[in-house]
Amino acid sequence: MNFAENGRIINLGIVGLGGRGRGWTKALLDMKDVNVTAVCDIYQDRIDETCQMVEKGRGKKPFATTDYHELVAREDIEAVLIFANWEIHARVAAAALRTGKRVGIEVGGAASIEECWEMVKLSELHKTPVMFLENCCYGRDELTVLNMERQGMFGELVHCHGGYQHDLREEIGWGDVKRHYRQNHFMHRNGELYPMHALGPIAKLLRINRGNRMVTLTAMASKAVGLHEWYLKNRLGDPLTERVVAEGDIVTTLIKCAGGETIVLTHDCTLPRPYSRAGRVQGTKGIWMEDKHAYYLEGVHPSHEWVSFDEALEKNTHPLWKAFAESDREGTHGGMDYLVMRAFVESVQKRENPPIDVYDAAAWMAITCLSEQSIALGGMPVAIPDFTNGSWINRTDDVPGQYALL
Amino acid sequence: MNFAENGRIINLGIVGLGGRGRGWTKALLDMKDVNVTAVCDIYQDRIDETCQMVEKGRGKKPFATTDYHELVAREDIEAVLIFANWEIHARVAAAALRTGKRVGIEVGGAASIEECWEMVKLSELHKTPVMFLENCCYGRDELTVLNMERQGMFGELVHCHGGYQHDLREEIGWGDVKRHYRQNHFMHRNGELYPMHALGPIAKLLRINRGNRMVTLTAMASKAVGLHEWYLKNRLGDPLTERVVAEGDIVTTLIKCAGGETIVLTHDCTLPRPYSRAGRVQGTKGIWMEDKHAYYLEGVHPSHEWVSFDEALEKNTHPLWKAFAESDREGTHGGMDYLVMRAFVESVQKRENPPIDVYDAAAWMAITCLSEQSIALGGMPVAIPDFTNGSWINRTDDVPGQYALL
Repeated sequence: MNFAENGRIINLGIVGLGGRGRGWTKALLDMKDVNVTAVCDIYQDRIDETCQMVEKGRGKKPFATTDYHELVAREDIEAVLIFANWEIHARVAAAALRTGKRVGIEVGGAASIEECWEMVKLSELHKTPVMFLENCCYGRDELTVLNMERQGMFGELVHCHGGYQHDLREEIGWGDVKRHYRQNHFMHRNGELYPMHALGPIAKLLRINRGNRMVTLTAMASKAVGLHEWYLKNRLGDPLTERVVAEGDIVTTLIKCAGGETIVLTHDCTLPRPYSRAGRVQGTKGIWMEDKHAYYLEGVHPSHEWVSFDEALEKNTHPLWKAFAESDREGTHGGMDYLVMRAFVESVQKRENPPIDVYDAAAWMAITCLSEQSIALGGMPVAIPDFTNGSWINRTDDVPGQYALL
Repeated sequence: MNFAENGRIINLGIVGLGGRGRGWTKALLDMKDVNVTAVCDIYQDRIDETCQMVEKGRGKKPFATTDYHELVAREDIEAVLIFANWEIHARVAAAALRTGKRVGIEVGGAASIEECWEMVKLSELHKTPVMFLENCCYGRDELTVLNMERQGMFGELVHCHGGYQHDLREEIGWGDVKRHYRQNHFMHRNGELYPMHALGPIAKLLRINRGNRMVTLTAMASKAVGLHEWYLKNRLGDPLTERVVAEGDIVTTLIKCAGGETIVLTHDCTLPRPYSRAGRVQGTKGIWMEDKHAYYLEGVHPSHEWVSFDEALEKNTHPLWKAFAESDREGTHGGMDYLVMRAFVESVQKRENPPIDVYDAAAWMAITCLSEQSIALGGMPVAIPDFTNGSWINRTDDVPGQYALL
């Protein structure tokens, strides 16, 4: 494995300089084979802060603009990273694809099926790949489970569970109302707002868009009381306490795959709880359960007894994770941020397909608006589009290199 | 608390003398305020075995018949216990109710909504209560969580999860095909076949039929591969390996309540796994999770940190469980069998309403056939009947005594 960051030097443009965008910029400035050549945000204060950071790191200010159309049109960049609010991920991607730029998109759900299709069609038309930057696909536990599954240790896969179970009340609750898009989504939407941390690793396990696909879903939302109660407790007198919160505290989504597998997703962000991604994988030979930090393999472990997942982490760690852990590289979110970004950077450098591609992006992002539709229709099943237009049946993963999620 | 078994002596008739029926008969013979006066099964070998057991215990053979109509018609019994196969629970109950006998029904799902209604209407017409013998309502963890909830420790309840996650492949797989009704259900039905161990305690927490009710559900089944793979491995050459298994390995059911709460049920019986009822309760102040054996209460525990549920078992054990544990009584399934049966026996002795009544029985049993319908219709939401005909709104629990699940 190579973490030398000695590839072809590439020039990147960055759209979206909020907390996450600035964090990513900082990480990119630490990579010596990457230049941050252009930056964009609608807020000047964020632009100023980022430009100073780039200048400090590289001795030269990047091009800066408040209009992403200006950024994507530039000929001195070959790829665009999108860290903006969820609403404009797909449209910035579309604009970049139209200028032939490669795209990396931070995760977030789609507002419509149409914006997913547009991204797919533009990527196909311009032969320009999109990578979806789902870091949890490179999580330690997730990579280990992937490695085990590919060795057949779980047998035939049948059922997976995942969740975004993250108490965001402090983050959403204290946020600046005007600039806090995430808070606004909770106020206006009711659905699986953030499926991909859970769904991404599951989709890779189940080979979604590569011999399998997600066919239908139903979703159900609980009442929304957690955030309101938090506001009453923490911001009494603020108009926020009068606002109706649209997003149910717990949103559960059931997905059926062409291969007959089922997926359960849990969105759980406005009640008190310790963080968990609720990973669970079941096959005909065994089960893994994140919340127990345990697994059970029939015929391997004592009958019907959970075994600590530490054993698996020792015996079955994915080669990529093992090499990363032994390297001197570090990264936020326990290292998975580093891995997903290097996967993007190296796919650009080598002009290869990324391990999480435009079909994955479209299918995973679509779960958000489809779950909203199902909930709005009282739990009606809704069809999940086949963004590969049938090619999922024979499609195989052609991603080479150390970052492949095969 | 009183576990003296010194109430008014009652005469019971028992229908269904399979493994569970004979086990229950044995337990009842240990209670000195109960007589087993009449028994019924369609198989003579089971009748013979049970009659010997009763004669050995009490010095007198019970009346025995292969026709449950004969049993329920007898004037020397005042209540009928139904331990027969799932298919005839409701119709035996109906026959008993028509003769004015009180009824206790071992758990199992309904095949139709109509049989649930018939049971409710006959119980109302004859003013004769039915108790549903859901032992897990009296489980140690479940009672503790109920006790905590009633003290407001979880805040406003929002979401519950439960499951019947029990690897039954050995039981179903080796069973006598002709007499093994449970195996037959897996061969012919696809739904939440056994909802009540999970749903019962949740329904009590959420005050279902007492100010709340279940309004709608959707269900989804995975493919069915676990049992077939087991047959291929263990009964190669047997015609069973050619049989199509109807029941998906994992069936997930989402239920929405009138109070806005959501319930997730998992039926998971044909894949390798350690046993778990997957208990999870979430409110605006905290969460409990059985699989972690942990809980978290905001403001009580260190921020965002799980705390062992042992602490709760020590501090918040339900008074009934505490008294039971300190008594010299024992019982199968960790004691909860004893508690649920004494709840039934004492409700008969005192001519009181049972803590799990005919409306609970109907609503919980209905989940089975409704989940089958939803799955058959591709995940369509289906309405859950209001078996109280509107009285749930103002209904309160009027069960006195130590076995109340208030």
